[in-house]
Amino acid sequence: MREVERILLAHGSGGELSRRLVEEEVLRYFDDPVLGRLEDAARVPAFPGRPALTTDAFVVRPLFFPGGDIGKLAVYGTVNDLAMAGARPRYLSLAWVLEEGLELAVLRRVLASAARAAKAAGVAVVAGDTKVVERGKADGLYLISAGVGEVPPGRDLGPARLRSGDRILVSGPVGDHGMAVLSRREGMEFEGEVVSDCAPLAGLVEEILAAGEVHCLRDPTRGGLVAALKEVAAAAGMASEVTEAAIPVRPAVRAACSILGLDPLHLANEGKLVAWVAPQDAAAVLAAMRRHPLGREAAQIGEVLEGEPGRVVLTTPWGGRRRLELLVGEDLPRIC
Amino acid sequence: MREVERILLAHGSGGELSRRLVEEEVLRYFDDPVLGRLEDAARVPAFPGRPALTTDAFVVRPLFFPGGDIGKLAVYGTVNDLAMAGARPRYLSLAWVLEEGLELAVLRRVLASAARAAKAAGVAVVAGDTKVVERGKADGLYLISAGVGEVPPGRDLGPARLRSGDRILVSGPVGDHGMAVLSRREGMEFEGEVVSDCAPLAGLVEEILAAGEVHCLRDPTRGGLVAALKEVAAAAGMASEVTEAAIPVRPAVRAACSILGLDPLHLANEGKLVAWVAPQDAAAVLAAMRRHPLGREAAQIGEVLEGEPGRVVLTTPWGGRRRLELLVGEDLPRIC
Repeated sequence: MREVERILLAHGSGGELSRRLVEEEVLRYFDDPVLGRLEDAARVPAFPGRPALTTDAFVVRPLFFPGGDIGKLAVYGTVNDLAMAGARPRYLSLAWVLEEGLELAVLRRVLASAARAAKAAGVAVVAGDTKVVERGKADGLYLISAGVGEVPPGRDLGPARLRSGDRILVSGPVGDHGMAVLSRREGMEFEGEVVSDCAPLAGLVEEILAAGEVHCLRDPTRGGLVAALKEVAAAAGMASEVTEAAIPVRPAVRAACSILGLDPLHLANEGKLVAWVAPQDAAAVLAAMRRHPLGREAAQIGEVLEGEPGRVVLTTPWGGRRRLELLVGEDLPRIC
Repeated sequence: MREVERILLAHGSGGELSRRLVEEEVLRYFDDPVLGRLEDAARVPAFPGRPALTTDAFVVRPLFFPGGDIGKLAVYGTVNDLAMAGARPRYLSLAWVLEEGLELAVLRRVLASAARAAKAAGVAVVAGDTKVVERGKADGLYLISAGVGEVPPGRDLGPARLRSGDRILVSGPVGDHGMAVLSRREGMEFEGEVVSDCAPLAGLVEEILAAGEVHCLRDPTRGGLVAALKEVAAAAGMASEVTEAAIPVRPAVRAACSILGLDPLHLANEGKLVAWVAPQDAAAVLAAMRRHPLGREAAQIGEVLEGEPGRVVLTTPWGGRRRLELLVGEDLPRIC
């Protein structure tokens, strides 16, 4: 019987095992010539647009879940943050905190998945770092990505551009990622598997920016749709109103939420975006979303209003009105 | 008695406590207007040079040690990686993995230290992320930084530029950081406290690049001077020779090493650089180093030679010759 290959503390010490881990494992999946030079910093060609920079730490538990894993999530999460700023994603770095004893086979699966995701998203992984911590300290691995994108001249998205009357669009059903991770973690079985929506949104963003006057984009990750709506409204100094019946939620997610007492509007998404669009262009932008594979189920869900900054009101199918609030306590930890 | 304020799992959930942690704690120390907008990605002004990108994960134990802490280390470590590529450090991101139960007072000390270091190094912290993991994971906190710098036109440093006869310079005594962390971790007392050399090297780099023809720079962090010498020699396809008696090591570090059976040439440094310099300019570059506060004890330690790629030979004071090798096993885990 062959012994299982595992990560040792010495893989993080900067010595011979560190060198082998990078050269024999990491570079096998990421064959970028800039990364392959293994220099202290990756130098990339100059570009004319404004640079955009973002970072995300991923501590999702479990590492693999329906529709994705921590590697794919880290790459797409970072690509999407860049895309929401109107930036074309260009370069990524990946920093790994590995737990002593992690099976090398698990690391290889995550590396392969991250590499596939980077290729699919058209970004080059050009820098990295690997550290190892003692057994019990990191749940297998944590993965921290940073990304650099290029904002083409003339593009200026952000809450400051919101105007009263702007329409609010969402690119598809909400809550899939949060429920997929939760169901795997808790070993729950639902009718109709719930799968994470984990996907790269930069292509969809290019389509919708070409279709009309878009003022702001946001991907509703941790904190879900509610957090995205409230944060943008607060930053814009505006209020908004959304219609519950217009917000797409998959039946399986809705059913699981009602069993668990969760609200799909607070669940994390990893392949959806919210767009705030000038009213005269809302129909054209919605049509552009629906033409794209990642926006087929897009919907217009609400509108920006003058009013108390950050106030978001949900109108229910029975004519009720409910003020949406961020959750204060613990809802779903370690969802990304 | 006032209860100790601590990090809760909910601080990482994306809800109200996440928002307060960022707005009330993080932004108090980092008041950059770009960061303050809290958008998905930070958009910064375009610059003419080539961008350089780097990332580092910091898992140092303990979080505070003589001469530094994990916050200062993360900022300077990333600044230095950029500087070694000839890039002027411009922007940083910081991603935090916090342990449930971490005292807020500890987080504040690290935030304050990182903010001071960023100011001292002239970089803007423009992006961040915070996650929380359960009690028992993450040893208080892990901190992962990424940096973007600008390589001025015409600058091209790297192992590929090494030539036979290039002189090898080091900017000061080696081993201080590794021994400072180790001594605090193990509760050892030495005559003459050993203090980490943790410092930002970008200013020193500008001075020495102006002083002569520098071919390559490297900061000897994990794996120490030996790893820097061997990695650069291997990447250059050259050999090199260094003189043991010429390599500066503080007496307290040397004494502690001999007690512990460690070699200072394998210990990590966080405020030193190694420079490979054209022979005719070695004296001028050495003089420039010594004029700078961070290079007063700089020394010429060796020379590049034709020969087996990656071979580095140390000549001892007694005329012996010893081939330097990377450590294979575990020497000093979690030193940065």
